[in-house]
Amino acid sequence: MAKRVLSGQRPTGRLHLGHLHGTLNQWVELQEKYDTYFFVADWHALTTAYDDVSAIKQDTTDMVIDWLAVGIDPDKSIIYRQSDLGETAELAQYLSILTPLGWLERNPTYKEQLREIKGKEITTHGFLGYPILQTADIAIVHGEIVPVGEDQLPHLELAREIVRRFNSYYGKTFAEPQAKLTKAPKVYGVDGRKMSKSYSNAIYLSDEPDVIRKKISQMITDPQRKRRVDPGDPNACTVFDLHLIYSKDLNIIKKECREALRGCVECKEELAERVVESLKDFQDRRNSFVENPLLAKEVLERGAEIVKPIAENTLHEVRKKLNLD
Amino acid sequence: MAKRVLSGQRPTGRLHLGHLHGTLNQWVELQEKYDTYFFVADWHALTTAYDDVSAIKQDTTDMVIDWLAVGIDPDKSIIYRQSDLGETAELAQYLSILTPLGWLERNPTYKEQLREIKGKEITTHGFLGYPILQTADIAIVHGEIVPVGEDQLPHLELAREIVRRFNSYYGKTFAEPQAKLTKAPKVYGVDGRKMSKSYSNAIYLSDEPDVIRKKISQMITDPQRKRRVDPGDPNACTVFDLHLIYSKDLNIIKKECREALRGCVECKEELAERVVESLKDFQDRRNSFVENPLLAKEVLERGAEIVKPIAENTLHEVRKKLNLD
Repeated sequence: MAKRVLSGQRPTGRLHLGHLHGTLNQWVELQEKYDTYFFVADWHALTTAYDDVSAIKQDTTDMVIDWLAVGIDPDKSIIYRQSDLGETAELAQYLSILTPLGWLERNPTYKEQLREIKGKEITTHGFLGYPILQTADIAIVHGEIVPVGEDQLPHLELAREIVRRFNSYYGKTFAEPQAKLTKAPKVYGVDGRKMSKSYSNAIYLSDEPDVIRKKISQMITDPQRKRRVDPGDPNACTVFDLHLIYSKDLNIIKKECREALRGCVECKEELAERVVESLKDFQDRRNSFVENPLLAKEVLERGAEIVKPIAENTLHEVRKKLNLD
Repeated sequence: MAKRVLSGQRPTGRLHLGHLHGTLNQWVELQEKYDTYFFVADWHALTTAYDDVSAIKQDTTDMVIDWLAVGIDPDKSIIYRQSDLGETAELAQYLSILTPLGWLERNPTYKEQLREIKGKEITTHGFLGYPILQTADIAIVHGEIVPVGEDQLPHLELAREIVRRFNSYYGKTFAEPQAKLTKAPKVYGVDGRKMSKSYSNAIYLSDEPDVIRKKISQMITDPQRKRRVDPGDPNACTVFDLHLIYSKDLNIIKKECREALRGCVECKEELAERVVESLKDFQDRRNSFVENPLLAKEVLERGAEIVKPIAENTLHEVRKKLNLD
């Protein structure tokens, strides 16, 4: 039987190239070989955005539409909303009782976010317990494999520890989830920083071709190449980083750049056309989906219907072990 | 409309005189005037007893039978099990996101328990979050009044703070629960310490008359009164503390003790008969209840049926505020 893969994404609204190459392309592949569960992590979004919940519903819809247009297929994957499984919260409650504070406080992502997120009180009980909720997300559907980037490995290790502790007290109940380390190309935004909605530097999958062309035309190139006649260094150019993804004639591009045979303007125009072209099918699909404003809702409802009995089953099993049922 | 009173008790099995005078007598009174919700706090029990869950089911049954025999009336009060309301866990998840760690760490009960409970890892995320779960217990049924002892006042203050924070972010949703400070007589166990199951010094409501007589005969009296002819000091005698509850002729008892006109043996015998007598009706009722092993289960199921729609309603209201529904 195919192994069960679980992954979630915070509802951040329309998705961008960073999401596509970091996560979505991989999900599309995974669903061909595995029993895949993809969920909208709206509770996780709340842990840092509890002070403004106005966008969460629209962001969920926009994101799910993007998932579908990219090729996440409701006939191949179970697509659902975290908050539709109240069972996860109850399981998290049980895991919370078992999880020493020290394990959570040592979590490097926790420490990093404490440093990075300013101007908002995020040192809350729920924020500290984030990895517990993640563990519950996995365990509630008996997830076996979790695709993660390198930076999330400590979270998954914590999930394994928590699951192990549960099993040691109440008998083998959950498999320890395995990490599937994903190698994703780095995708930089228009300003040269990591592409991110919060940096306002993102090229969205649903951006109109002219918007994409304009954004790419504004991208930072090799800062040493001041004039058209100066030789450029592709390794110092974020436009070239995108060529790595979108172009096949890399050796020619590199040579022409280094020898100042191509200017940055034409290099960007070439890239922009390739990005626009590569997103054409996606955008056509997306446009047809957008016409049906209920589509995302229906997909999520259908997903919830499928996953709910699984979650209920797991919770029943857990409650029996805890001598509550 | 009568105000809604909420109170819970951890399932510790058969109840003792300390429970009766500390909590149960008051519950019986409250149900005459208020809309009363009494719940078996089995999740709370788990926070410190997660390492051994074997007794939780029998303890729940035993406790509920005692509740009923004492006069908690399922026609007047809603009697239910905390763990039958999964909605509470989801609400706790939302409150957890809003609750700064500092509020929890400053909680005096938390600090005290850390000092007192040894040999078990209780510094867990769930244990620290105990007051959040309590807040959710109250809020999920829109509890307005919570009877508490002096030592629990900080918890209730924390509940009020958490509720206030929720209201401030998402609009007025919950009333801030009010404390109803209870004055309960101190009840000491056979060894002179506070009566408690964990000290093995308790006189149980369901103890056979001869067991009660024997336990009272072993109680500690004024340690200065070594011989029958020595004068005694009622204020230094835990037997007299029980007379304060069970006897009306207090002045006579005090005088006879101080003038060595009564010995400790007869004084205890007198007390024992009064305790036995006072528990007679309770024990008769209890014996009739014990014959129906399904009674507690049925009462809890009926309570869950009544309280579940209330909890669902509250959760729906909360999810709407959070833009999830």
